[in-house]
Amino acid sequence: MNNNILRNNELGVFALGGLGEIGKNTYCLQYNDEIIIIDAGVKFPESYLLGIDYVIPDYQYLIDNQDKIKGLFITHGHEDHIGGIPFLLKQVKIPRIYAGHLAMGMIKNKLEEHRLVKSTNLITYTNKDVFTFKYMRVSFFRTNHSIPDSYGIAIETPVGTICHTGDFKFDFTPIGPNADLAKMAQLGEKGVLCLLSDSTNAELPEFTLSERQVGDNIKDIFRRITGRIIVATFASNIHRVQQIVEASIATNRKIAVFGRSMEATLKVGLDLGYIKCPKDTFVGPEELKLLDENQITILCTGSQGEPLAALSRIADGTHRQISIIPGDTVIFSSNPIPGNATSVGNTINKLFRAGANVITHSPLTDTHTSGHAGQEEQKLMIQLIKPKYFMPVHGEYRMLKIHGDLAIQCGVKPENVFVLDNGQVLAFSKKGARVAGAVPSGSILIDGSGIGDIGNVVIRDRKILANDGLLAIIINVDLATKEVLKKPTIISRGFIFLKDSIDFVNELETETLSFMHQALQAKKNIVQIKNDLTDYLSNYVYDKIQRRPMVIPVIMNVKRSSA
Amino acid sequence: MNNNILRNNELGVFALGGLGEIGKNTYCLQYNDEIIIIDAGVKFPESYLLGIDYVIPDYQYLIDNQDKIKGLFITHGHEDHIGGIPFLLKQVKIPRIYAGHLAMGMIKNKLEEHRLVKSTNLITYTNKDVFTFKYMRVSFFRTNHSIPDSYGIAIETPVGTICHTGDFKFDFTPIGPNADLAKMAQLGEKGVLCLLSDSTNAELPEFTLSERQVGDNIKDIFRRITGRIIVATFASNIHRVQQIVEASIATNRKIAVFGRSMEATLKVGLDLGYIKCPKDTFVGPEELKLLDENQITILCTGSQGEPLAALSRIADGTHRQISIIPGDTVIFSSNPIPGNATSVGNTINKLFRAGANVITHSPLTDTHTSGHAGQEEQKLMIQLIKPKYFMPVHGEYRMLKIHGDLAIQCGVKPENVFVLDNGQVLAFSKKGARVAGAVPSGSILIDGSGIGDIGNVVIRDRKILANDGLLAIIINVDLATKEVLKKPTIISRGFIFLKDSIDFVNELETETLSFMHQALQAKKNIVQIKNDLTDYLSNYVYDKIQRRPMVIPVIMNVKRSSA
Repeated sequence: MNNNILRNNELGVFALGGLGEIGKNTYCLQYNDEIIIIDAGVKFPESYLLGIDYVIPDYQYLIDNQDKIKGLFITHGHEDHIGGIPFLLKQVKIPRIYAGHLAMGMIKNKLEEHRLVKSTNLITYTNKDVFTFKYMRVSFFRTNHSIPDSYGIAIETPVGTICHTGDFKFDFTPIGPNADLAKMAQLGEKGVLCLLSDSTNAELPEFTLSERQVGDNIKDIFRRITGRIIVATFASNIHRVQQIVEASIATNRKIAVFGRSMEATLKVGLDLGYIKCPKDTFVGPEELKLLDENQITILCTGSQGEPLAALSRIADGTHRQISIIPGDTVIFSSNPIPGNATSVGNTINKLFRAGANVITHSPLTDTHTSGHAGQEEQKLMIQLIKPKYFMPVHGEYRMLKIHGDLAIQCGVKPENVFVLDNGQVLAFSKKGARVAGAVPSGSILIDGSGIGDIGNVVIRDRKILANDGLLAIIINVDLATKEVLKKPTIISRGFIFLKDSIDFVNELETETLSFMHQALQAKKNIVQIKNDLTDYLSNYVYDKIQRRPMVIPVIMNVKRSSA
Repeated sequence: MNNNILRNNELGVFALGGLGEIGKNTYCLQYNDEIIIIDAGVKFPESYLLGIDYVIPDYQYLIDNQDKIKGLFITHGHEDHIGGIPFLLKQVKIPRIYAGHLAMGMIKNKLEEHRLVKSTNLITYTNKDVFTFKYMRVSFFRTNHSIPDSYGIAIETPVGTICHTGDFKFDFTPIGPNADLAKMAQLGEKGVLCLLSDSTNAELPEFTLSERQVGDNIKDIFRRITGRIIVATFASNIHRVQQIVEASIATNRKIAVFGRSMEATLKVGLDLGYIKCPKDTFVGPEELKLLDENQITILCTGSQGEPLAALSRIADGTHRQISIIPGDTVIFSSNPIPGNATSVGNTINKLFRAGANVITHSPLTDTHTSGHAGQEEQKLMIQLIKPKYFMPVHGEYRMLKIHGDLAIQCGVKPENVFVLDNGQVLAFSKKGARVAGAVPSGSILIDGSGIGDIGNVVIRDRKILANDGLLAIIINVDLATKEVLKKPTIISRGFIFLKDSIDFVNELETETLSFMHQALQAKKNIVQIKNDLTDYLSNYVYDKIQRRPMVIPVIMNVKRSSA
């Protein structure tokens, strides 16, 4: 890149993912022959990406410049910040991965699954650590977020200090340790060249509720309820889990845990000391029978209505160990993520049908709070760090834009706010800042075990197949004698139920035969005939029943002479 | 039904659609040999119903009892109340359709499209009309809703009066006429047996904002803005359109209208007198060039981010006549319907990118209000009508359940609240009420011009095809000699891009050939061979690349002797 984009002794700051979109967070800093990477996230696909499991950034720039990479620094343990690590490691040699205590635990689990743990250097950092490279010096400040051990990162470079907030909110009565307000202020006092700050909640004109208040609300609800309590929340929100544990202890309830990721959270939380409680707090499913209903808390996954999660199966009546008893109270300590409102609503419908009471997060109940700063918190971060330049990160374009406007309100010069796209390189020198060009960036689609082998054509075909199914016609012909050798074979899937449509199938056969006879006589080549037959049958079907299945003609030349 | 479900001189009240779901609203009242129907709605399919255009109720009970039907009464002109009419008329003879002024205008347009207008008796009603049948007497009371001419219906029967609210809210400062509060109170005083009431917003503990306040907010925003204003709203909300017209007149702006349904609304609104303004208020697209930017309002469709609507194309830069000029302000006078949040967000991202300012509905702007009663309004309706029995309608199960609880809070006896499913018959006699059984009900899927020819198998196949595409293998064999006659032909769509995967295709061919040789020798029949080959190739592909395309083997017996 240096030859083309960055000049000598310029600092390049750019994102391979995480600008203009949610997830896929991957940011790079380069100074001469030194690159550090911040986060390696994975994005869950939009609904139009049919059948795609994950979306990762295009790592081509890192592949081409692996010799310059000094390390990957992880801000916290959420999937949109660590989920891309296995895919990155399969393509790029990363000398060291640096992460906080909890994130490192989660990364190790992930690398073990992918059998990558032995080949990777893992370094756990705290907010006391400083890592010094040839040009850059990396240190950390604690933030508040919806997972413990979340950090912002400060990188001193020859042209100035860059701060990256990671995901953050401000919580002055947090469940875990306080955020390093003083350290942020000291960074600001010493002078920060550019702040990269979390834009996720830039549309919300508010200061988010403290996690502790949510815990108090949950405890109040627990005190009012008789009968079993079933609580669903995000498994990674260990502080929330701790508070549900405390509410249960305060109301003399034992806790049974359901759902694989919730069980994993609990194990990590207890092992690493994030969850503290007497040993007999948790019970297995078989012990529930021995307890009075007022002594039972069921803590489970499924707060997003995910069809296979514990709560959905409990609501469906398909869970092996638990079903709703009329009078149960289900508490959603969560908010539907945009796109999940319908599935959450369906789950609530089923819970009501089964006789449960349901309490969701609302302004009246406040059983949940966001892990991301609202506008007032975003402004506080800007006022503490007092950056000369501002680059909003983490969020869709509208959030970046609004966050940029907030920075201007807080005194950053309008010309010093850079709302960039993935790949665009912001270059800093002693003279100033400029947008210096772009490195390769984009989305790589992951389906199954392939990386990037699914392109637009495959997605487009899936869309057509999803809407109208397929109609394949297989025709054996003898090209030499220009004869159709057999009645065409018609196959359909997702189109109409052929067994119920015998007349229609007969018509299609007749139409195909008469088309083929003419086409073969007209001496067209096979490719022409196929294209024309596709058009002919597509139009025929649309005229008849106003549907547009994917028409696939297969014309096989079976030479009579071969017999 | 009378023989099996309803006793003689019992009044049956039941829904073919509209309980436990949104849309598909279709309610029936039957007394001996007399049936009246209220509304005939169409539902837009949930996302899992791939390729389905509409969902309508199963009309089988009405088909079987058409001789008893006296008429179809329409409460208002929204699609979820009138969209099913053409499908109903194609299956069931309906002697008369009764509707208010505006709804009748929209029904006529719809029937003209389907060439059904001549064969149908259409009767326009007002709140002064009473229609008397052998047993039942039907009258109307005006309500407030997000479309003009919305009515509740009161049906006097030999066992008591049934009231159906239609969709409603209470708006004490409406844009159109007032709701008939006195008439509702009179019905209550005379005694109402059962109230069927709109549950859509039963989850909202509030009294919805007045439409007039929304108009005032929009006018305030208009006064603060320089440059062009682009407003998107629901085309059917004629009162909202009128208020946007007034805000434009007050700020000396001319209005250009884009989007087919908005143009249609405007035509109906001006023709029928719902929209009032000086003649020169509207301008064509070509006249915009002659106006200063401060003199322009663009009123358009697309408030839900629908990809083909005017606003989406303006945001994309693909609209033929209009593109964003930096400094434009786009106002969303709407709320994203659940499920549309992502597409609306994407549209806003594009508008910001193009340089527009965007104002959305929020507690700070209040550029929109719901047309459905919140909890306080639902309670007011119950207190006015004072029904002995209560049956919540219009809404998913959780909304019906919460609405039922509100009725109990307002004094309805708990045993008199019936939260029913579609098809369940609530039977009233002089003695009391009972759930008497169920008539056929369910969902009929409409894809293209077919009614009900798409079943579960087709939907399931579409889902598989959507996620992983298809892999078809065509093999010509001679069953007599047990030989495979040609190399298999492999076709895939939506799976992998075959041209980029030549090695994999070769492997599949080799595997198929060796499988077929063995299978033919083992003297299995073709059906067995097909099933086994499907399993074999499915597993082979999954082991190789962790994907599960639909495998379609086509084994064609081409006899050598036929040559």
